[in-house]
Amino acid sequence: MEELKQRILRDGKNLGNGILKVDGFINHQVDPALMDACGEELARRFRGAGATKVLTAEISGIAPALTTARHLGLPVVYARKSKPITMPDQVFLTLSPSHTKGRMVELIVSPEYLGQGERVLIIDDFLATGATILGLARLAQTAGSTLVGIGALVEKIFEGGRAALATLGVPIESLACIRSMEGEQITFCNDD
Amino acid sequence: MEELKQRILRDGKNLGNGILKVDGFINHQVDPALMDACGEELARRFRGAGATKVLTAEISGIAPALTTARHLGLPVVYARKSKPITMPDQVFLTLSPSHTKGRMVELIVSPEYLGQGERVLIIDDFLATGATILGLARLAQTAGSTLVGIGALVEKIFEGGRAALATLGVPIESLACIRSMEGEQITFCNDD
Repeated sequence: MEELKQRILRDGKNLGNGILKVDGFINHQVDPALMDACGEELARRFRGAGATKVLTAEISGIAPALTTARHLGLPVVYARKSKPITMPDQVFLTLSPSHTKGRMVELIVSPEYLGQGERVLIIDDFLATGATILGLARLAQTAGSTLVGIGALVEKIFEGGRAALATLGVPIESLACIRSMEGEQITFCNDD
Repeated sequence: MEELKQRILRDGKNLGNGILKVDGFINHQVDPALMDACGEELARRFRGAGATKVLTAEISGIAPALTTARHLGLPVVYARKSKPITMPDQVFLTLSPSHTKGRMVELIVSPEYLGQGERVLIIDDFLATGATILGLARLAQTAGSTLVGIGALVEKIFEGGRAALATLGVPIESLACIRSMEGEQITFCNDD
């Protein structure tokens, strides 16, 4: 998606060690118009998947999942990383390694909002190693739901997430696929 | 806002001790169409305030702040509760008591995205005691920004937040103001 790629080139920053800073438009400050356009494009790509629910993880997955879900006319569930007091005692919980936190984090979904017969589309901001998305896929599986697709705003293909998710056997879409980041130079997958 | 009130009556649940569970459409599962309608209504109410930025706190403030910001054509910044590695060393930070966590939490904003000359509209999901919103107002003040308004989806007026925020001297709007919750009975402020 050209609009997102141009924004990454303009406002993204390679901090080294594979970390792309997008705090100005995705992760801390959010550009709602861009996020809506991204949601519209992800919705377009997954319109035929027959999803009944969008699933994401707090925190930075919320914005793209919300806009995608709005364009698909579906509810969105965001997995919590700590169990709020409003959640029942019995929940779906899985552990997932967090790069940015350097430890395992919990991903928790209430059985009230994810269950048998649901067709789940996972949306997140980044597809890097795929660890968070694999965690979400395990939650969907445990709930008895069927995974129908995976979408991300930004893919860092050099971290191997797409390969790690291949066994899930569902379509994977990203709006900006980054092949490499070296100094100021960000190269997209199809920029050959 | 009638649509939100009806949804609270239908799907909200009084868990006792002043806790209203809205996990089915605001806080864990989100209804994007309802959230968009709420954002549109908050945007309408604050259109004349001359805001240049919407400010909220992760996690559950993100959805209503994003939709409000989209309808106002503004960027939205969500205060983080832990400092990500992409944030500079020098940040704006304040402490705020969290009811649901039973302890103080940090609210952190990067000086890159909030600064002098900004006119800030604070949007959150709940206005209860007002503690989180007061924390956000302190961050805006520290950054040299001007607070121009405060909006929330749901106000629990019996927790005194509106009174606590009065000293800020800005308009306060909520889309569903709850006067009391007793058993199954949820009474709105204007239901006399």
